[in-house]
Amino acid sequence: MDHGPNIVTEKKAEESHRRDSADLLVFISLLTLTILTIWLFKHRRARFLHETGLAMIYGLLVGVILRYGVHIPRDISNVTLSCQVNSSPGTLLVNVSGRYYECLPPSLFQRHFFRNIGSILAYAFLGTVISCFVIGLLMYGFVMLMQQVGQLDGDFFFTDCLFFGAIVSATDPVTVLAIFTELQVDVDLYALLFGESVLNDAVAVVLSSSIVAYQPTGDNSHTFEGMAVLKSFGMFLGVFSGSFALGVATARCGPLSCISSLTLPLVPHVTKFTKLRDFPLLETALFFLMSWSTFLLAEACGFTGVVAVLFGGMTQAHYTYNNLSPESKDRTKQLFELLNFLAENFIFSYMGLTLFTFQNHVFNPTFIVGAFLAVFLGRAANIYPLSLLLNLGRRNQIRSNFQHMMMFAGLRGAMTFALSIRDTATYARQMMFSTTLLVVFLTVWLCGGGTMPMLSFLRIRVGVDSDQDSVTAVDGTERRTTKQESAWLFRHWYNFDSNYLKPILTHSGPPLTTTLPSWCGPLARCLTSPQAYENEGQLQDDDWDMMADGNGSLAYGDVTVSADEAGIHTVSAAHARHPAGSPAGLLDGDTLTRGTQLVMPVGDSEPTLVLSPPGHREPHRHRE
Amino acid sequence: MDHGPNIVTEKKAEESHRRDSADLLVFISLLTLTILTIWLFKHRRARFLHETGLAMIYGLLVGVILRYGVHIPRDISNVTLSCQVNSSPGTLLVNVSGRYYECLPPSLFQRHFFRNIGSILAYAFLGTVISCFVIGLLMYGFVMLMQQVGQLDGDFFFTDCLFFGAIVSATDPVTVLAIFTELQVDVDLYALLFGESVLNDAVAVVLSSSIVAYQPTGDNSHTFEGMAVLKSFGMFLGVFSGSFALGVATARCGPLSCISSLTLPLVPHVTKFTKLRDFPLLETALFFLMSWSTFLLAEACGFTGVVAVLFGGMTQAHYTYNNLSPESKDRTKQLFELLNFLAENFIFSYMGLTLFTFQNHVFNPTFIVGAFLAVFLGRAANIYPLSLLLNLGRRNQIRSNFQHMMMFAGLRGAMTFALSIRDTATYARQMMFSTTLLVVFLTVWLCGGGTMPMLSFLRIRVGVDSDQDSVTAVDGTERRTTKQESAWLFRHWYNFDSNYLKPILTHSGPPLTTTLPSWCGPLARCLTSPQAYENEGQLQDDDWDMMADGNGSLAYGDVTVSADEAGIHTVSAAHARHPAGSPAGLLDGDTLTRGTQLVMPVGDSEPTLVLSPPGHREPHRHRE
Repeated sequence: MDHGPNIVTEKKAEESHRRDSADLLVFISLLTLTILTIWLFKHRRARFLHETGLAMIYGLLVGVILRYGVHIPRDISNVTLSCQVNSSPGTLLVNVSGRYYECLPPSLFQRHFFRNIGSILAYAFLGTVISCFVIGLLMYGFVMLMQQVGQLDGDFFFTDCLFFGAIVSATDPVTVLAIFTELQVDVDLYALLFGESVLNDAVAVVLSSSIVAYQPTGDNSHTFEGMAVLKSFGMFLGVFSGSFALGVATARCGPLSCISSLTLPLVPHVTKFTKLRDFPLLETALFFLMSWSTFLLAEACGFTGVVAVLFGGMTQAHYTYNNLSPESKDRTKQLFELLNFLAENFIFSYMGLTLFTFQNHVFNPTFIVGAFLAVFLGRAANIYPLSLLLNLGRRNQIRSNFQHMMMFAGLRGAMTFALSIRDTATYARQMMFSTTLLVVFLTVWLCGGGTMPMLSFLRIRVGVDSDQDSVTAVDGTERRTTKQESAWLFRHWYNFDSNYLKPILTHSGPPLTTTLPSWCGPLARCLTSPQAYENEGQLQDDDWDMMADGNGSLAYGDVTVSADEAGIHTVSAAHARHPAGSPAGLLDGDTLTRGTQLVMPVGDSEPTLVLSPPGHREPHRHRE
Repeated sequence: MDHGPNIVTEKKAEESHRRDSADLLVFISLLTLTILTIWLFKHRRARFLHETGLAMIYGLLVGVILRYGVHIPRDISNVTLSCQVNSSPGTLLVNVSGRYYECLPPSLFQRHFFRNIGSILAYAFLGTVISCFVIGLLMYGFVMLMQQVGQLDGDFFFTDCLFFGAIVSATDPVTVLAIFTELQVDVDLYALLFGESVLNDAVAVVLSSSIVAYQPTGDNSHTFEGMAVLKSFGMFLGVFSGSFALGVATARCGPLSCISSLTLPLVPHVTKFTKLRDFPLLETALFFLMSWSTFLLAEACGFTGVVAVLFGGMTQAHYTYNNLSPESKDRTKQLFELLNFLAENFIFSYMGLTLFTFQNHVFNPTFIVGAFLAVFLGRAANIYPLSLLLNLGRRNQIRSNFQHMMMFAGLRGAMTFALSIRDTATYARQMMFSTTLLVVFLTVWLCGGGTMPMLSFLRIRVGVDSDQDSVTAVDGTERRTTKQESAWLFRHWYNFDSNYLKPILTHSGPPLTTTLPSWCGPLARCLTSPQAYENEGQLQDDDWDMMADGNGSLAYGDVTVSADEAGIHTVSAAHARHPAGSPAGLLDGDTLTRGTQLVMPVGDSEPTLVLSPPGHREPHRHRE
């Protein structure tokens, strides 16, 4: 009967389905356990161990049980591994976008992020490349040494070392940032660290894939060849800018397509014109699907999905998010918060699990010691020289205790792990994977757990209410002289954004009819949302704050340091925003030429203004 | 160099990864398109096409394009198929649990569900089995006919026919129910239809797997054998009750384990004692993970995950959900609403897609015509005879227009599709799959689209505010005489539940110290939540309503029919709850012996009572 083989395959499929279920159940139980313990920790306000650290510990314990307690045939555990690995990009995506959404408007963060954008870009791009090459070179030295001593059982090329350098250059200070948020550590330090870690993830992903793509022609494929290096470099630039453009485009090219045809369902216009806000479920679902499709589109095009989502998310947060109804904002944020929480803990407990269940570990003491040294030196070669250089241009110095804190907060995490587990086929990759695991574990536990002591050791001020800290300002004169130079590019972009992009893409004013030349009248009227007219005089709180900073106090920075009362006073002087009512002289020219946008914001350092609802500001608005 | 093969496999993996991304992108775009169109429909209040029907149409269109527009190699499209099929149980799980959560407390639904539990169980269990065998037998006749005519190209056994009967017996009237909710159709009809559809999914799943497991000994594996039939029947009972028990146990055995050790992290006690309510994120995450782990546990044990989740979800909704903080309730509900929405539309658009992209379709006209006839007759053999029987025992008759509506609402949907696509290896299964697709399409479009006309044709009253409809009651005397007989079992269970289970498992009163015998004092004190004492006099709104119905007006039913003003009056008489203030005589005995529970609820038909906040009811509470 031909039923026989069917039944056999069916049984086999059933068997494997059961095993998969059991595997997944292990993870869910781990997550449940983690949540319960976190609750306990939160309840007792224990801060020495973050939930991700905890998730790793539980993962380790279960790994030990699976390894030594239960007998698992080698092939099964590998199947599990590969099955989980396939889901790791998705997890990572959720993780990345989730973490991103967590810190979004209307939080204070965005303002500080853009204020420090130059430094953040320097650390993330230049710093990651420096770190990658420093680590790569050092590791190559160690590999040479190992070869001399005869400790090496397989090939280990210079490209492998560089690859290792790239993957361990992605920092993930989620543990540290959680403590920063809780203790209200200085927002500039937060912005620097967070911005750097988010962007260097992107850089590391693209860098590592460019290194993998390095293929000299000819027989010996591991020699130096200028052409291939150039090709890799070109690929780095291409993939990075492609992902960037794609992310921004899917989130933002609504206007362009909108001009040609109003029917195309691209994000900002969809949420702006369709009045989806009447149906929060649809709105949230759409927001979620758009984020996901950005990722998929990038991956399908051969770009890097995580990078595209990152920049797409930033764009969406800046434009689309403001179009959502308050209920949808809450829903969307809560959804991403939950997904991020689950994904983060999943990936960290999975990390713990693999330490014992992965079958092809290669632990080499020399390599491990070398890796720790290289990671340390690589981070130092990123932070200290760049800070020195940046401080030459910044009036608001990145002080040495901030530098030490950034050095200390160079934890490695989810991205490093995901990049290292993606390919464990060769001897070199296996050694890297094992070493990476150890690096992640130690940095998460030690640096994560040591954040509190380190904060007090470095005398970094906590409990900073950043809306109020400028009240202590006594002297703003020196600041003002450097305003225009340091923020030139940003201010111009910001004005363009405020006058054209935001009105086109969101409901916030000023109406395009006032900002576009008169011959664009019909077009402007067609693109301006009715709500923009209502908002004509009323910029949103965020916009207002942002603008105030954008125009008024860009050369801003150190709040910091001394925990003693007197210290705060003197040091905070460097942090002064311009005294309210006197900023007009600085902002003539370009900012005084257009619509409502032009009106000088009164410095948001006046507590009464900051705390009052937007409507209350109107009397001040036209006082220039 | 050994780099060569690596690069090749890497490229291959990259290629397939890109294709997967593109595939998924198609789905996401479909969902996005569906959402946008739904918005348009909602905006214009068009009700003739539900979002699921729309999702199918889009799926069909994309399927046509993929099939005829773009050339897809046969193997690729099959890979896509199998890949998606693997994710379908998960989708279904989310779908099922999501739909379940949508209709949960504090909605009116629960009350009506339990009031009609007997009829629902009859339709779902007896009805599904009847339908399965009627369809199976009819189809076997058609198959015989086809064999005579020579239309059959492969084996088609009686077990296959029965399997077909089982899978098309799962109804999915989501389209109809959406319209019911929107138009406020009678809640009893809603409860009957919804309850039946949810439970018959569970029955169909287990039934179909029992039929697949039918294996007579000996050579000819398709003959009748008493032993094997008994074994299959035993398996049906075993798997069903196992899944049921497991679902209820994971959600509920908190108390049992709690008595022996308070540390076990089982649902109700976790949320009750840990004060997780201070952290809504953790709470929601835990709720989500617990639901998921119920599914996985059941699957890993060889039971049916969907069934376990179903009953686990009911239990959780009844007990755990009330322990959540209001914020977490909102979050949890919104999360499941979103997941359900996405999963539902995913599965329906996937259905549309497979009609053109599935490569092994077997469309046989005779079989298809036969299937439609059999599905119709099978549904009729479920509804009409059972309604006749049930009406013998029910004082609140299931009127003929309700019966016709239930007959009409026998749409086939997600579950039927998921069961039919799980195995398409044999000729018979392929023919079933193709036919099933057509059945789903036609029922969803025709019956879904025809709901509005059918409602008015059958003169089923819409716009029923079920808290107020009893105001029209003029005569409650006949009702009361049958109260005790018809609800005997339910009332006893409900009292047990209110006095013991709920106090143990939730924060709602009465405290166990008042309901347990005095010798249990220490145990009772230990298990009672502090909040229960606070709640001592204050039952929650839901409980109160539920109790009112549970004790007062269980023999309840028809609201129905005539759209003319006079008609409402006379017919609604059958729907009368007891007039407020006069129900005491019925509820002596068991309900008057224990704590606050005993206090007679004043009939919730008094609008002033229904509308006032719980606190306002206190003066009435002890008036018996």
